[in-house]
Amino acid sequence: MKEQKQVGFVQDIANLNDDFAQWYTDVILKTKLVDYGPVKGTMVMRPYGYGIWELLRDELDKRIKETGHENTYFPMFIPKSFLMKEAEHVEGFAPEVALVTHVGNEELGEHLVVRPTSETIICDMFSKWIKSYRDLPMLINQWANVVRMEKTTRPFLRTSEFLWQEGHTVHATDEEAEFETIKMLNVYVEFCKNILAMPVLSGKKSEKEKFAGARDTYSIEAMMKDGKSLQAGTSHNLGQNFAKAFNIKFLDKDGTHKFGYQTSWGVTTRLIGALIMVHGDQRGLALPPPVAPIQIQIIPIASQKAGVKQACEKLRKKLASKGLRVKVDLTDETPGFKFNECEMKGIPIRIELGPRDIENGVATIVRRDKLEDGKLQIPLHDISKKDYGNADNNPSHKIEKYLDILQSNNVYTFKKFYDQLVYKKGYNISKFLEELLSEITYDMYVKAEKNLHDNIAPAKNLEELEKVINDNKFALSMWCGERECEEKVKKDFAASSRNMPFDQTKIHDKCSVCGKDGKFKIYFAKAY
Amino acid sequence: MKEQKQVGFVQDIANLNDDFAQWYTDVILKTKLVDYGPVKGTMVMRPYGYGIWELLRDELDKRIKETGHENTYFPMFIPKSFLMKEAEHVEGFAPEVALVTHVGNEELGEHLVVRPTSETIICDMFSKWIKSYRDLPMLINQWANVVRMEKTTRPFLRTSEFLWQEGHTVHATDEEAEFETIKMLNVYVEFCKNILAMPVLSGKKSEKEKFAGARDTYSIEAMMKDGKSLQAGTSHNLGQNFAKAFNIKFLDKDGTHKFGYQTSWGVTTRLIGALIMVHGDQRGLALPPPVAPIQIQIIPIASQKAGVKQACEKLRKKLASKGLRVKVDLTDETPGFKFNECEMKGIPIRIELGPRDIENGVATIVRRDKLEDGKLQIPLHDISKKDYGNADNNPSHKIEKYLDILQSNNVYTFKKFYDQLVYKKGYNISKFLEELLSEITYDMYVKAEKNLHDNIAPAKNLEELEKVINDNKFALSMWCGERECEEKVKKDFAASSRNMPFDQTKIHDKCSVCGKDGKFKIYFAKAY
Repeated sequence: MKEQKQVGFVQDIANLNDDFAQWYTDVILKTKLVDYGPVKGTMVMRPYGYGIWELLRDELDKRIKETGHENTYFPMFIPKSFLMKEAEHVEGFAPEVALVTHVGNEELGEHLVVRPTSETIICDMFSKWIKSYRDLPMLINQWANVVRMEKTTRPFLRTSEFLWQEGHTVHATDEEAEFETIKMLNVYVEFCKNILAMPVLSGKKSEKEKFAGARDTYSIEAMMKDGKSLQAGTSHNLGQNFAKAFNIKFLDKDGTHKFGYQTSWGVTTRLIGALIMVHGDQRGLALPPPVAPIQIQIIPIASQKAGVKQACEKLRKKLASKGLRVKVDLTDETPGFKFNECEMKGIPIRIELGPRDIENGVATIVRRDKLEDGKLQIPLHDISKKDYGNADNNPSHKIEKYLDILQSNNVYTFKKFYDQLVYKKGYNISKFLEELLSEITYDMYVKAEKNLHDNIAPAKNLEELEKVINDNKFALSMWCGERECEEKVKKDFAASSRNMPFDQTKIHDKCSVCGKDGKFKIYFAKAY
Repeated sequence: MKEQKQVGFVQDIANLNDDFAQWYTDVILKTKLVDYGPVKGTMVMRPYGYGIWELLRDELDKRIKETGHENTYFPMFIPKSFLMKEAEHVEGFAPEVALVTHVGNEELGEHLVVRPTSETIICDMFSKWIKSYRDLPMLINQWANVVRMEKTTRPFLRTSEFLWQEGHTVHATDEEAEFETIKMLNVYVEFCKNILAMPVLSGKKSEKEKFAGARDTYSIEAMMKDGKSLQAGTSHNLGQNFAKAFNIKFLDKDGTHKFGYQTSWGVTTRLIGALIMVHGDQRGLALPPPVAPIQIQIIPIASQKAGVKQACEKLRKKLASKGLRVKVDLTDETPGFKFNECEMKGIPIRIELGPRDIENGVATIVRRDKLEDGKLQIPLHDISKKDYGNADNNPSHKIEKYLDILQSNNVYTFKKFYDQLVYKKGYNISKFLEELLSEITYDMYVKAEKNLHDNIAPAKNLEELEKVINDNKFALSMWCGERECEEKVKKDFAASSRNMPFDQTKIHDKCSVCGKDGKFKIYFAKAY
């Protein structure tokens, strides 16, 4: 593995500890996730970046459908007057909306807003479609592009146009709407855990930080490797605010007309930024297997030798046929260069396959999340029940050798397959790698969760708050509920309130900022 | 089935022969595929309509990836100056582009065009990414929304915003680009056939009808039930037009710098309009099974009777577990109402299940494409190999009865399962219905293809051309190649040239319009 140091990829990426922002930029550009678009604040999602989005989207879409929502598509152009109907909403979005004023050379009668979010246009249609309690709950979602022309932008984290899903629902009662709001927040929590290997803190936003037009906003917050918080998703209980502004009324069972209760919830391409900053390291990306466009990269060693390329291709076909996303790197570069590139691109497993490996019936694998420590040998060929009788006929299938290989590795998946061999249940490389990918996802989650908890510290007064925040940690505090205290933290420490966890067990009595009665447990942190 | 006539759905849909346009509008609104958006020319895709799009998109996406293309996402806002770079391109699109001039109250330094198509912004990035022949071919695609503010609009067929995919490729040679152009056209032909059950005529567009900026445009044209043509997809050989305008150059193997050769190709939400007008009838939609959001609707008969709802739900679960898209209609309506709704929504198969059916171990199925003629009984329970020995133990599994049921029906799928029972291979209702859905797709295609060929007529001179076009048929003609002749046909008969088929065997000598030398075989037809 000595070649790695000669290639120089790692040196081309800014130091993660010295300049995290530059590290991020280097990683996303060098791995070709994105490029900057020609208009300020826009990004182009290149195949490797969009590939992550597709996998992420499909997994989340499955969950959105399983919870009873149906996909739709609403027009992107919204009459300007619609935005004006809900007072807080217009105040929140008006300064950053893109306005279409002309078609060709002709000015439009009414200017159009390019959707910054779709509450207003969807509510306009809801008011037509919803007549009776029988039409409720109405549960829809859309995957779309939205535009918010913000001043400071960074690829994935904040771009003038981004991709997202936005769920919009109408319910007959306040309780149902609140239940939906929390249910979808929890869908995001589960999704972040199992698909993105990313732990999040879920809770309620303060009045100051809530969505413009919502009654209550809940968020999931993730901790980046620089200790900053990133709001990774939100779920809003809209109450009857929009229903009143757009006249969404239904005839209830009791014969009276009532305004509907609404929710909306969304996550965006920002999640890719979160992934990068939660799992990445000095070598580049580290992608969780469920969203890795390439899960396994096979790198031929001495590929000019007879049979090497063929063995690589044979293995690729075998793994691909089981649904694993696998590639063989057949470029002209040296193995060392390929190892580095594979690490930089965050491919979860690489397999090295050379003439000696092929002869010995083994493959050398390296886990991206463990690097040198994740270098292991695994049996290349399958062992089936019938091999127990006649293993001697084929030296590469010798069960004793396989037991040795699998026993020597101290990993759960290895132990499991070792047991399977002992109990004559056989061994299958595709199944083995599939399990290993799950184990990697789990291990990545555990590592990120440890990092999260190691970097949360209680702060019972202003001094502690300052220290915790300056240490780039999340400050778990008590708060009186007044906006002034949030503003003081913002002004003095450049940090904001993140959210109030559902577990509101008091950690101390007084507001960590002003010393008055501490009503809410809340996280303060620097944030993206 | 007498109830059908009492419900009155069919009467609510305008007569297809008398007023095809109103029939179309009635069908798309009453089946809740779409609704009109608040801004003129826009449409809202409701769950049933968007569900078709999702299925269609996933099937086509698979084909686009299998042919080596990768998905990307480019910004929707394009600097106005980009559009100006390719002369024909700007002329074609400028009058209908939506312009973003302001953010909030501030005017932008450079106005932005909302993409009417993405050649310009993609070419700008290609010019950065492509350096050497090693970077070629570059094969990308994107699924996106685009905006063309046209004056006359109709849902799906022509809306100011629509969804589509646009493929964009760069090649080292002219030959490769032409090969790609035709290859992707053929992907569309195969896709329309096997997924949409829709026959198309593929060929080359005239100079007048080609894409603004292309060297050559190829199209697929489908025949609607009113005899009009609908351009259902296009594939463009862009030559070096955009490469020169955007300076897309690569260092070739021979050491010289060359401009790339490009293609682009796309299909849109218009395909849903095509589907409706190819397969629909007086009862409403008829959806081809591969894109039907609901493939099978189970309708309980006498649902208040013990066990009926349970039997329906049991069957639903069984079929759903095999990947069939199936629903039980548990609303309070009468069976007759449900049958009608099921037909109007174009659900390929409905299953009626009542107490007597359950007792007899049969289900009554009705095919949407054959209506009364497609009413058949099928065995409800599976027969496995072991049932051959002990069928007497369970009267509902009596093989002789099943043979009788399956033999009495003159359908390929039935014959196949009859044979399977005779040869003791068993019977499985899920597998049976899966096969039947394939058979429906095939039969729908054959029917549509017959309609297409029955409505193409040769026209060797102006009189014949007039007659064929006034009969609402496609006129297969010879053409001298002059734009004047196309314009005459447009002016006199309100028809346009559709495309020139690949088979250019002459059908007569003279141009059907002017009588001069007939150089090209071409279709003239009224069109959407």
